[in-house]
Amino acid sequence: MSAEIICVGTELLLGDILNTNAQFLAQQLANLGIPHYYQTVVGDNPARIKHAIQVALERTSTQDNSTQVLIFTGGLGPTPDDLTHETLADFFGVPLAEHQEIIEDITRKYAARGRKMSPSNRKQALLPQGAAVLPNPGGTAPGILWQPRSGVAILTFPGVPSEMQQMWQETAVPYLKTLGYGREIIYSQTLKFWGIAEAALAEKAAAFLNLPNPTVAPYASQGEVKLRVSVKATSPETAQQIIAPVARQLQEIGDLNYFGSDEETLASAVGKLLTAAGETLSVAESCTGGGLGQMLTDIPGSSRYFWGGVISYDNAVKISVLGVNPDDLSQFGAVSAIVAEQMAAGVRSRLGTTWGLSITGIAGPDGGTASKPVGLVYIGLAGADGKVQSFENHFGTGRDRALIRHISACTALDLLRRLLKAREQRGEEGCS
Amino acid sequence: MSAEIICVGTELLLGDILNTNAQFLAQQLANLGIPHYYQTVVGDNPARIKHAIQVALERTSTQDNSTQVLIFTGGLGPTPDDLTHETLADFFGVPLAEHQEIIEDITRKYAARGRKMSPSNRKQALLPQGAAVLPNPGGTAPGILWQPRSGVAILTFPGVPSEMQQMWQETAVPYLKTLGYGREIIYSQTLKFWGIAEAALAEKAAAFLNLPNPTVAPYASQGEVKLRVSVKATSPETAQQIIAPVARQLQEIGDLNYFGSDEETLASAVGKLLTAAGETLSVAESCTGGGLGQMLTDIPGSSRYFWGGVISYDNAVKISVLGVNPDDLSQFGAVSAIVAEQMAAGVRSRLGTTWGLSITGIAGPDGGTASKPVGLVYIGLAGADGKVQSFENHFGTGRDRALIRHISACTALDLLRRLLKAREQRGEEGCS
Repeated sequence: MSAEIICVGTELLLGDILNTNAQFLAQQLANLGIPHYYQTVVGDNPARIKHAIQVALERTSTQDNSTQVLIFTGGLGPTPDDLTHETLADFFGVPLAEHQEIIEDITRKYAARGRKMSPSNRKQALLPQGAAVLPNPGGTAPGILWQPRSGVAILTFPGVPSEMQQMWQETAVPYLKTLGYGREIIYSQTLKFWGIAEAALAEKAAAFLNLPNPTVAPYASQGEVKLRVSVKATSPETAQQIIAPVARQLQEIGDLNYFGSDEETLASAVGKLLTAAGETLSVAESCTGGGLGQMLTDIPGSSRYFWGGVISYDNAVKISVLGVNPDDLSQFGAVSAIVAEQMAAGVRSRLGTTWGLSITGIAGPDGGTASKPVGLVYIGLAGADGKVQSFENHFGTGRDRALIRHISACTALDLLRRLLKAREQRGEEGCS
Repeated sequence: MSAEIICVGTELLLGDILNTNAQFLAQQLANLGIPHYYQTVVGDNPARIKHAIQVALERTSTQDNSTQVLIFTGGLGPTPDDLTHETLADFFGVPLAEHQEIIEDITRKYAARGRKMSPSNRKQALLPQGAAVLPNPGGTAPGILWQPRSGVAILTFPGVPSEMQQMWQETAVPYLKTLGYGREIIYSQTLKFWGIAEAALAEKAAAFLNLPNPTVAPYASQGEVKLRVSVKATSPETAQQIIAPVARQLQEIGDLNYFGSDEETLASAVGKLLTAAGETLSVAESCTGGGLGQMLTDIPGSSRYFWGGVISYDNAVKISVLGVNPDDLSQFGAVSAIVAEQMAAGVRSRLGTTWGLSITGIAGPDGGTASKPVGLVYIGLAGADGKVQSFENHFGTGRDRALIRHISACTALDLLRRLLKAREQRGEEGCS
């Protein structure tokens, strides 16, 4: 068996959107051990979609005689330019059949949002005769699972990435497993680091980067560095036995820069440490404007340790709600160590939490000066012991507003994480 | 002329990297007015690369008899799996020729970094005989510009996005302009809507969706619906003349659902309306945890109208900082109309702004009940006239925590935007 990914959408040919679906599906096929030699992108045009199908089918027969899986994304919407199912039916010479259960499903989804189904949505209930429905829990566009002829299987998904991914996990993966795929699959653990450059970590971990099994590969984005440890194995247990000792050594190499694996984030790592210590946190945000709170509350259950915060975007709010000293504000400016410290102490005392964490800085693009350039960010931290600290950061060089704000919030979380982690390690040592 | 993009690289088939090169080239081709109907991704395998070339050349001849441009990215590096130039030479039956000037260029670049050229880099100086060198200012891998036969032009670029983009701008664009492209380029305006489903808007705008010039295409993601109006024209002025009347009619169709064009966001639209009215805003966030504040402060200069807010994730903060009535909290629960109203009124009065906007809801995945399911979100709005309103929303069906939070923040912004917009329209009518 081999697969070809065919992404349908004129918006891809115009460069309006990035083809994240192709990457997701490519990773999934690799994990399941299904070979995949080509990807095709084609617009919302029946003749060209047919040509893409024709080419893909001819490719298979030149590869081997086993089943060919064509995986389509896009072109399942309600508008006239959504043509994937229609064109597939036409290509294989079968009529479209209306599925009453799809109309009912769409009607129900619209009703739940207090809306009425549009007549054009009926189009989404028309599938090639003989195709099975791939339900779409998150949207109105169902996909299909169809074997139009021997040796050819077709899977279709909507172009909306969240819907496509959910449908893939819930329906395509179980189906491909019944065909025998996914016996040996690729397991991996991604170790995550903050506070160390990719090159520096790669040098420290150089001996691991040429391992044949498991393989170790570095990645970096937006300040976070990752090492992915991968192995092909028949069971999670076997994989874990191979991955675990390598992961442990890489964690030791990363030391306090290592903050977690896989789904762990800086916010969830902070959450675990606070939960373990029975402590609580509040935040005072200026240039991040709520981004730090949003990261913390991305984590379900974060209300156990995160009580809330104050977005003190305007200086009046810093004074009136957080109790920042107006004289210090005018003498040192809103972006200063002393104001960061007073914001952290103020929010901690106002909200009654164990910790208060603050951010004040210049995110740009305007507002920078020679002495306070864009990217200058102070982070304040007030703790249970009454101690208040601040940290000066320079995040500006070559970074835009969004990235400066993102890195500011991550760095604030990381500062608290390091402090909690170091304390936990000292505590453990003290107890042993 | 038409173009096909062929991206070479096994890492794309494994999903290790996102194909940003395809998006960049697609945008560039669209802007130059060069039609482009297919993209192909293929691994580092000579037989399959040849098949991709074969298919692309056959596609052309089925389209028209004019020149076909094949644009390759990737496979130009020094390692044995980098095979693009070799395979192209082989496909068109010409030998490789060594370019002394490339070897000198690579030697110079290594020397500048205090390194010696590796023997494997010599491979990068071997290009198909007859091909012109596309210099790579940023790296060691040059590309080619080659007409191996009449009606076929080949451009190759390295896979590293920064190098590819620089080479494209410096060498490919001037070349394509000498061929007469770029005289007419594609201009577009994207109209953005909130509060109407894609299908419903497409039905209202049905008459426009089949226009030949300009073309109008609908898109939707995460609650936002867009109509892109595109036209091929020789100057921005001509384009604007064609786009403007259509855009105006589509705005009228969208009515209050239309919130802006192109780079406009709900937050920037709210910002403009507040600025025009000389008014200010504060927010009180529960389930969004700072996301609404973050959206507002994404906009540079938002401090003119956005003063800040309170993240009242814990009920104690709702009571102590926002002044929510504890009895109402226990009787009606934190997710209720009355609490949303008291949060909005509380933050408005606490921060002294014209408007107070609040969000309280159940973002899930846990915490839902039969009477208060995941996705139940109340939005509160307190205004200058002392009037406090609340709005009940059901965002749950099939949506995850992140999407519920995103749509909650957008909907809150949209409620205020509609109110301000409607008031502005009434004001204008009153003055005329």
